Amino acid sequence: MHSFQDLTIQFGKHFSKEHFPQQPHKLYAGAKHILEIGGKRIRPVLCLMGNELFDEIHPDSYEVGTAVELFHNFTLVHDDIMDKAPLRRNKPTVHTLYGDSAAILAGDVMLINVYEHLNKVQPHYKQKLLAAFNKAAIEVCEGQQFDMDFEEMEPEQVKYDDYVNMIALKTSVLLAASLKMGAIIGGGSDYNQQHLYEFGKNIGIAFQIQDDYLDAFGDPEKFGKQQGGDILVNKKTFLLLKALELCNPAQHTKLKELLASNPDDKVAQVLELFHDCQVDAWAEREKERFQEIALKHLESIAVLSARKQPLMELADYLLKREH
Amino acid sequence: MHSFQDLTIQFGKHFSKEHFPQQPHKLYAGAKHILEIGGKRIRPVLCLMGNELFDEIHPDSYEVGTAVELFHNFTLVHDDIMDKAPLRRNKPTVHTLYGDSAAILAGDVMLINVYEHLNKVQPHYKQKLLAAFNKAAIEVCEGQQFDMDFEEMEPEQVKYDDYVNMIALKTSVLLAASLKMGAIIGGGSDYNQQHLYEFGKNIGIAFQIQDDYLDAFGDPEKFGKQQGGDILVNKKTFLLLKALELCNPAQHTKLKELLASNPDDKVAQVLELFHDCQVDAWAEREKERFQEIALKHLESIAVLSARKQPLMELADYLLKREH
Repeated sequence: MHSFQDLTIQFGKHFSKEHFPQQPHKLYAGAKHILEIGGKRIRPVLCLMGNELFDEIHPDSYEVGTAVELFHNFTLVHDDIMDKAPLRRNKPTVHTLYGDSAAILAGDVMLINVYEHLNKVQPHYKQKLLAAFNKAAIEVCEGQQFDMDFEEMEPEQVKYDDYVNMIALKTSVLLAASLKMGAIIGGGSDYNQQHLYEFGKNIGIAFQIQDDYLDAFGDPEKFGKQQGGDILVNKKTFLLLKALELCNPAQHTKLKELLASNPDDKVAQVLELFHDCQVDAWAEREKERFQEIALKHLESIAVLSARKQPLMELADYLLKREH
Repeated sequence: MHSFQDLTIQFGKHFSKEHFPQQPHKLYAGAKHILEIGGKRIRPVLCLMGNELFDEIHPDSYEVGTAVELFHNFTLVHDDIMDKAPLRRNKPTVHTLYGDSAAILAGDVMLINVYEHLNKVQPHYKQKLLAAFNKAAIEVCEGQQFDMDFEEMEPEQVKYDDYVNMIALKTSVLLAASLKMGAIIGGGSDYNQQHLYEFGKNIGIAFQIQDDYLDAFGDPEKFGKQQGGDILVNKKTFLLLKALELCNPAQHTKLKELLASNPDDKVAQVLELFHDCQVDAWAEREKERFQEIALKHLESIAVLSARKQPLMELADYLLKREH
């Protein structure tokens, strides 16, 4: 059994190679750029962990991990075009460097390459692996569309359950599917695969709630981001949507006023409102609620507890972070 | 054995169904739109013909045909964004109707759906089919990038062989791969698959030369397009590139002047120049050259001549069209 940290190093070594040819330069330069600016490679590592929960790590898990990481980076390239984002990880985005057309095409060729890696796995589980991957990949696209749809709506129009569903599709199902694909390679039963999938999905949602919480209430020194960045751009977050639900009519009017204007102390004022309607305490409970659902699913998996240790540690690491 | 026309009808029936769910509306409405505005469905029919060259048509050929047709339509959606094209088949393009972001995402989800269909085929040739498909799909992206690169260059800078290679990648390899995938399903040998692939690739190039020729010299009544449409927008075509190579210095200066200006009789003047440097006769020979290469490959396929009849008829139909 390996820790999350060990597997991150091992996958990093495997992944740090030339993934694309030289020509056409403009097409592949963008694809290389997004891979070179780094990332935590969490999804492929989840794949390795899902495999190792049931059996020794098979080389196929590295192929599937590579596929999942390429897919994730493909979504970043296309999402950055849609969001007109100039920077990612403090580096220029692909479309900023090479133009929208080359960035669209770079994403496309990365997505096709995903399936080159998935095509390398053993035949006896290829159908199941592709089905699990495709389901998640389609859901990620659907989540991105719901996210864009919600951006055009007033925050009160977005129902909380629809928002949770959007977050699950956009960010959690790929984490969940990475674990599940590892389980398929490791020979886990359908029952175990499903519980592992739900573990990953709920950890993902809990993580997103924590991310929203830290953006508002986290220590900017540790979190590494500007405090209240989401508030400044009126981003629809778990906190904002729930605050609009929890607050009294006077607070509601105040919050809407703040969203419509940009006073110098907007962040401080919104945070005060969040405190007053206790959305901070709610967020902590809500995160714990999803975390507990996740851990119940992990408990339900029919393998020795000792094998689950790395996944327990990962959940603790992800959900107790202050940075 | 079925004719091309018969198979077009059969595939059309198979393909005319709901391919996507209802929600998120903006995502799938674009994908549905591009499929609804029609198309000749030539690639899936090539897949059926490649299959039937060797054996009775297996249901997998319909799945692979669906995959190839979805892929082709995905490329149209993304290419139209890159080209900022307002219309396709006289209907608004997907990005015109739903915006660039939804169109990027609609293309993405179509591309993932391609692999849902490819995942349905029998396991014993799934690996080979996916490999043949992925190779062509990657090449189509590369062809599109080369095309965009060439657009930014002066016509004299584009070498003829590089142009032929770009056209082959962008338009012919998917035709060739469609035939080859059919052959894989039909149980054709590697030798036969390869000759069938080359048949398709060379027919595709010949077809493109003819397309360029007809745009310039065709009867606009029969061809259904404005005569000289390519000339009006200075499109790099087989004719233009070869004319620049064949013409004398005086003609070269004249041609460059015409490219840089837009006189009312631009089409007529360019056509006269094309005549004078005999690029029209050259284009007919060049088309025949590729057609002959194609037919030699078809001859080399080790099945009874009678089985090749529908493919011969298709080649004749495609390469003797006046419309």
